[in-house]
Amino acid sequence: MSPAGRRPGKTDTRSAILDAARECFADSGYDGTTIRAIAAKASVDPALVHHFFGAKAELFVAAVDFPFSPRAVLPALLEGTPGDAGERILRLFLGLWDEQATRRRLLAVIRSAVRYEAAAVMLRTFLDRELIGTFVRTLDSPDADLRATLVGSQLIGLAIARYVVKLPPLAAASTEQLVVAYAPTLQRYLSGDVGIV
Amino acid sequence: MSPAGRRPGKTDTRSAILDAARECFADSGYDGTTIRAIAAKASVDPALVHHFFGAKAELFVAAVDFPFSPRAVLPALLEGTPGDAGERILRLFLGLWDEQATRRRLLAVIRSAVRYEAAAVMLRTFLDRELIGTFVRTLDSPDADLRATLVGSQLIGLAIARYVVKLPPLAAASTEQLVVAYAPTLQRYLSGDVGIV
Repeated sequence: MSPAGRRPGKTDTRSAILDAARECFADSGYDGTTIRAIAAKASVDPALVHHFFGAKAELFVAAVDFPFSPRAVLPALLEGTPGDAGERILRLFLGLWDEQATRRRLLAVIRSAVRYEAAAVMLRTFLDRELIGTFVRTLDSPDADLRATLVGSQLIGLAIARYVVKLPPLAAASTEQLVVAYAPTLQRYLSGDVGIV
Repeated sequence: MSPAGRRPGKTDTRSAILDAARECFADSGYDGTTIRAIAAKASVDPALVHHFFGAKAELFVAAVDFPFSPRAVLPALLEGTPGDAGERILRLFLGLWDEQATRRRLLAVIRSAVRYEAAAVMLRTFLDRELIGTFVRTLDSPDADLRATLVGSQLIGLAIARYVVKLPPLAAASTEQLVVAYAPTLQRYLSGDVGIV
């Protein structure tokens, strides 16, 4: 409830919703949280939550200060030919890390996932539902989940080696050098022979 | 100094050396620390440090509870033909992670490196000097440093995806499935066209 004698303004409502969302996501994970539950905890109407934040994914992005919106990223991921998908994903990924503010938030996400199992699970579920799942369906392959995971494993390792541990040859490499080294790896994971059943 | 009236035993001396080593490595990094400096801090003769621990690398392994000794691992890495090196590295790496006790210590090393920049730098220097450097020289290639780093980036990412975040398709995969998926990547990083200078 708001302090006596003061009507809650737009800012109060917004931050009450964000507080409630953080609590719900932490308690119930990404899948287990609904807009309705967040609205109930914030004592507001669910329609108001939708009005401020849109879908659950967008509310999650705002509540945990996630570095980018999957919805903003997906179109770039899905356009173009399948034969270029490896390079496209890599350039998109490096582009996110190139922005200082985004990089700081990406680092915070990695640190938190490596440190807390619950944060890792929440991150995995969120990315599965909102980004990887949609992308994987476009691969139209029975082993799409494994392929997406292989791609993810190389991208995580690249980020840690280049931006966290700062191994000199990778930290100094240009985007174009990284594309030559890594794009064929990602492309093979997406569409090459990775020996699956 | 030992408490009055009690002669320091073997255990006291050993743990005094380990305490001194931890302090020196933390203050001066791996490269900046000498056996002589550790001996001085522990008020013992450098010969005694050598007697208990051997080389600086072994003392580092004991002091920071590093998960494996580079000296124990190098021979397996270096034997065999260059065309199989990717698979050999991968099997060695997975073998380390398969042991529960080693896995716990590897996880601790990763968490600490991701969390503290100084720990990441120390880890990088130690691995460079004692493991990667020796291996890289066997590649006999002007771009060996970059190649070793590309390999490292995939191994770190695989470990985080499989053992930390536990992405289901990777967490459930057998060693043989991982070899089919990852060995060609590592082999290409070691000896294929990665577009360098």
